[in-house]
Amino acid sequence: MMRVDLNADMGESFGPWPMGADSALLDIITSANIACGLHAGDPDVMAGAMALAVKNGVGIGAHPGFSDLQGFGRRRMEISQDAARNLTIYQFGAAQAMARAAGGHVRHLKLHGALANMAAEDEALARACYQGALMVDPDIIIVVLVGTAQERAARELDARIAREIFADRAYTEDGLLMDRRLPGALLHDADEMAARILAMLQAEAIITAQGIHLPARIDTICLHGDGPSAVIAARKLRDSLQEAGVTLAQFEGAR
Amino acid sequence: MMRVDLNADMGESFGPWPMGADSALLDIITSANIACGLHAGDPDVMAGAMALAVKNGVGIGAHPGFSDLQGFGRRRMEISQDAARNLTIYQFGAAQAMARAAGGHVRHLKLHGALANMAAEDEALARACYQGALMVDPDIIIVVLVGTAQERAARELDARIAREIFADRAYTEDGLLMDRRLPGALLHDADEMAARILAMLQAEAIITAQGIHLPARIDTICLHGDGPSAVIAARKLRDSLQEAGVTLAQFEGAR
Amino acid sequence: MMRVDLNADMGESFGPWPMGADSALLDIITSANIACGLHAGDPDVMAGAMALAVKNGVGIGAHPGFSDLQGFGRRRMEISQDAARNLTIYQFGAAQAMARAAGGHVRHLKLHGALANMAAEDEALARACYQGALMVDPDIIIVVLVGTAQERAARELDARIAREIFADRAYTEDGLLMDRRLPGALLHDADEMAARILAMLQAEAIITAQGIHLPARIDTICLHGDGPSAVIAARKLRDSLQEAGVTLAQFEGAR
Amino acid sequence: MMRVDLNADMGESFGPWPMGADSALLDIITSANIACGLHAGDPDVMAGAMALAVKNGVGIGAHPGFSDLQGFGRRRMEISQDAARNLTIYQFGAAQAMARAAGGHVRHLKLHGALANMAAEDEALARACYQGALMVDPDIIIVVLVGTAQERAARELDARIAREIFADRAYTEDGLLMDRRLPGALLHDADEMAARILAMLQAEAIITAQGIHLPARIDTICLHGDGPSAVIAARKLRDSLQEAGVTLAQFEGAR
Repeated sequence: MMRVDLNADMGESFGPWPMGADSALLDIITSANIACGLHAGDPDVMAGAMALAVKNGVGIGAHPGFSDLQGFGRRRMEISQDAARNLTIYQFGAAQAMARAAGGHVRHLKLHGALANMAAEDEALARACYQGALMVDPDIIIVVLVGTAQERAARELDARIAREIFADRAYTEDGLLMDRRLPGALLHDADEMAARILAMLQAEAIITAQGIHLPARIDTICLHGDGPSAVIAARKLRDSLQEAGVTLAQFEGAR
Repeated sequence: MMRVDLNADMGESFGPWPMGADSALLDIITSANIACGLHAGDPDVMAGAMALAVKNGVGIGAHPGFSDLQGFGRRRMEISQDAARNLTIYQFGAAQAMARAAGGHVRHLKLHGALANMAAEDEALARACYQGALMVDPDIIIVVLVGTAQERAARELDARIAREIFADRAYTEDGLLMDRRLPGALLHDADEMAARILAMLQAEAIITAQGIHLPARIDTICLHGDGPSAVIAARKLRDSLQEAGVTLAQFEGAR
Repeated sequence: MMRVDLNADMGESFGPWPMGADSALLDIITSANIACGLHAGDPDVMAGAMALAVKNGVGIGAHPGFSDLQGFGRRRMEISQDAARNLTIYQFGAAQAMARAAGGHVRHLKLHGALANMAAEDEALARACYQGALMVDPDIIIVVLVGTAQERAARELDARIAREIFADRAYTEDGLLMDRRLPGALLHDADEMAARILAMLQAEAIITAQGIHLPARIDTICLHGDGPSAVIAARKLRDSLQEAGVTLAQFEGAR
Repeated sequence: MMRVDLNADMGESFGPWPMGADSALLDIITSANIACGLHAGDPDVMAGAMALAVKNGVGIGAHPGFSDLQGFGRRRMEISQDAARNLTIYQFGAAQAMARAAGGHVRHLKLHGALANMAAEDEALARACYQGALMVDPDIIIVVLVGTAQERAARELDARIAREIFADRAYTEDGLLMDRRLPGALLHDADEMAARILAMLQAEAIITAQGIHLPARIDTICLHGDGPSAVIAARKLRDSLQEAGVTLAQFEGAR
């Protein structure tokens, strides 16, 4: 029996500025990555997102990023390993308390934006972030981009891991995300996404754009909720997976 | 046998800007109120302060304030009760994680600056903040300004409480701090401070500027560490209390 | 011949978060109040708003507010007169440069949010802000809420003034805005708004909810652009005024 | 007759956190680079720095940097050319208004920290920043690190330029700053600095660590004011240059 988790980012509003379709997504996903106030989210937004996640029985994740509201945490910044560790600890703790006050708890952590991209390339940086998270909670599940330095760092730290693929991105022969600017790098059709994901789950492998199978456990699929069409695509993907007999449930995280 | 705690604010540097004399204070105090990143402190500064506090066996407190770096959390701001609750939860959680990563834990919470001043006057605001803290940790010790709305709110919530007086401020007949601008409102002499504190501890009462005794349990004394003379005065006060047989130890917090 | 200006706030997006309907509003209004980066707007957003305003021949205004992104500058904050002056100067200058780089120039200044509300009640605060603006440009036109401390402060400073009323708010016998929570305080119907504004322009007076006429020069009408219905109402109001023979043009500002 | 300008950074305090020795430096330097609120400085700090500079007859410069208080603008960040242009315009404008309100005007602009370092390597980035500045004031004098992409970009834009060297850094054969980590990269002795600067002014050349002369006009020397010893060294350097007959005066900026 195939089983997978569906995750998406949430709580990305800030002050007077709404973002995303949190309520709609909560019917679709099984795990939510909630922004922690530095690149998006503020204590009030977090409280709302946590309450929604608890009410919907969705797994709560801390989603720490760079302290860069204007750039939404998407701009790469120079950062030392110590600073990356502290940045992760700080945001993780804030999320834990917000979750607890909402009657829930943080069960996973996933890096956001440029910090995630840098950690996918730089194992020492990933290790610093994950070490920080594990110092706070040794049982936290680390969501890693499968096949990247993120995964290597988390494994080496013997952390509980959930391996993630993107629903809407093509993969290269190295098992990495194809450059967004290349033709075919971005998938737009929900049926195509569903068929591909299903094939990967059945094969227990990443299937590259060229059709090569790279064996990999796939624990969770990253969806997007920005814009009505993204939500519709996400819902379609969920429906297709369920129709094909895939169980949608929170990842457990394996060491 | 008399016993009291000495507390001071710490971790109030930010980025490139140092503030305070954390290392010097840690020899003197028994509890540290550590800034949580919104009015002062940043994740790196917090990590440093937490490590110092753990190393020195000093009790760690979260010291949440308004999100106002420029005003150092000292400017009053309009805030709803919900926002005050969330603001407290967020900062408390960040401090908990930073403490845990440093091998310690947050055992008390004390509001900072304008948020503290407003909560000393507005019981509903104090209640919102403290409710937030208790939702995160029902055993957290709340440090309250004795005789204020802070104390009333914390008592009503049945929280563990530590009652605080200021070493360097005169009290009015209502048991409140005398307006700073009035003559005699600020004490500058360490011997005078020590004598007054001793008298209060012996009398188990606030002794007002007029010499009236207002019965009150005194659990902790707030010291300041801004500037070399403040540190010298703090050390003198500590020495005087010890010579007089007062045990200096972390408060336990009573419900 | 009757003549009036129509103004609205613009450039209130921030980083990844859009806000408002700037393009739609620019067909309707004659003057734009552009956020200056501290409560909303960032340098990129400002550049876009300035370029749009220049292209549409709309008068450019600086719209300074408190440095409070999360609260959108709508939360009252304690502020000294010196700080209010400097806060105004800083944001005015930033707006001037952004306008100049876009081929335009800032011709008016209007305070935003809580800073505006406080300045409507506190003449000394209003004076501090306006003095700051006049130190930078003695010919700047100050948009004031008619009949408030804002107007008194600007007059006393002998500034060029444009007096503003709100299209959608009822007025009390004192010529002040009726409390939003009272019945009838907010007008929702565009025809009703237009009829009332026309009557006021013809009468050269504020007409209160009770129908009393308070003589007042009216130079500009504040519209809102938050939400599609607000834009539709704004356009209707514009059309009604034009059909009634009112010339819509930028205010000149009289001392 | 030799003539040179001495510049230093100023106005780098923020809110409650003082930094630098602005008053002491103002007796020494002829041009001040004043922080513009995003990496350091706030409107109140800027007002104070501008007033001091005006009072002491020191040339005022805008010193824009990344919007990164915690990192003091010293952390490299990903930035588009458009964003760099807008960032420069915004801060330049804020500085202009603060200067004007203090009775002065901004006569030069010098990039700060990581933005400066990146612009020294990346001509397109430097061009974007300088274009922004020139759109605001075509006569602004751009202070450039001699021999870098900064200089090339400013020349190509036909801007008024002042070429800068560092008093305390050794130069490589390429005319660039020697890596701080190499032995001899940092000069600590004021006499040695003075001798070297004098030699360079006389030779009208950068003199490298190996003694090679690279012809270059030197218009201004960058001093540091962080810490009492830096101020003493700066004063000594000033005295030595004056004793050697060098006229210390604001640069004029040549195209």
